[in-house]
Amino acid sequence: MRQNSERRTALTDAAVTVLAKVGARGLTYRAVDVEADVPPGTTSNYFRNRDQLLVAAGKRVHERLSAPAEVMTNPRAELPSKHRLSELLDALVSRLTIDRTVYLALLELRLEATRRPDLAKALTHTVREGFDLSVEFHESAGLPGGRDAVLLLYLALTGLTVERLTLPGAFADISDSDIVEMLVEHTFRRS
Amino acid sequence: MRQNSERRTALTDAAVTVLAKVGARGLTYRAVDVEADVPPGTTSNYFRNRDQLLVAAGKRVHERLSAPAEVMTNPRAELPSKHRLSELLDALVSRLTIDRTVYLALLELRLEATRRPDLAKALTHTVREGFDLSVEFHESAGLPGGRDAVLLLYLALTGLTVERLTLPGAFADISDSDIVEMLVEHTFRRS
Repeated sequence: MRQNSERRTALTDAAVTVLAKVGARGLTYRAVDVEADVPPGTTSNYFRNRDQLLVAAGKRVHERLSAPAEVMTNPRAELPSKHRLSELLDALVSRLTIDRTVYLALLELRLEATRRPDLAKALTHTVREGFDLSVEFHESAGLPGGRDAVLLLYLALTGLTVERLTLPGAFADISDSDIVEMLVEHTFRRS
Repeated sequence: MRQNSERRTALTDAAVTVLAKVGARGLTYRAVDVEADVPPGTTSNYFRNRDQLLVAAGKRVHERLSAPAEVMTNPRAELPSKHRLSELLDALVSRLTIDRTVYLALLELRLEATRRPDLAKALTHTVREGFDLSVEFHESAGLPGGRDAVLLLYLALTGLTVERLTLPGAFADISDSDIVEMLVEHTFRRS
């Protein structure tokens, strides 16, 4: 197997693009070679088999989605917590548009994981790790509701991701900012 | 095109199973013939092209998911509304297991819709119609929070569907009933 890590990352990014464009079943060595604009056979020199390529794409998707957004690593402590949560959610939701390809690739990988135990194992680990970090962040930022609130936000944002990516027309009359406001209200409500 | 409607439904159900098993790109006439255990060429006699087959599968998925669950058509009016909502959500969440194949097929169709405008149009209509009916039901059942509450529940349940179907291990330590309880609590909270 070849080891040039810059080239390997470029091939993995090309695999992410192929996943978003044509789906998991269209992810072939040849399609990645074409997308990365490299000579035929290059991708097969870097990845032993499709499972390896899919697992690498899964890791890369999460790297790209967790790239530090300013607002997440540096929440503005001077703001009231309600406004900090709004700002955080606005930033997350705006990434659905900016990183559309990456989110679509993740959905394709999730479905492919129902058929590939190695991929399921890798994605399960990364998804849960991300959730646990969100709970820590939420608590250290002084936001209310603990793990339950984070779980509610996480599930609702996952649902919103699926809606906005796959059927953008279905809730076109409800804006992202209205949805963020609704989520913030529900998080801050008291029994 | 052939018109035997029982046969057509059986072929469409076979298409739903193929979608869940191998994904949208694996949905060929031949795969549906094999799954339905009919002579080669039968599916192509009923569906002019793949778009027609995909749109028919999309309609069928929603038919099967909206088959009247006892609890939904007949909410037990004698229960306090909080318990009625729990019962309703328990019934919905339990269907993720019972109708796993149908939900997986719907996710495959949603992703395929990003590449097929006709399919996107058909699914968009059905998804939104289902949501609007849920809002009507929620209000007529005397449940609180109006459209915002239904949207929150809808998004969270969509997120839960994706998690439970694609990476069941990621939140294996949090039970469906704990999630339902958390959703009910959030719906009934007051500002």
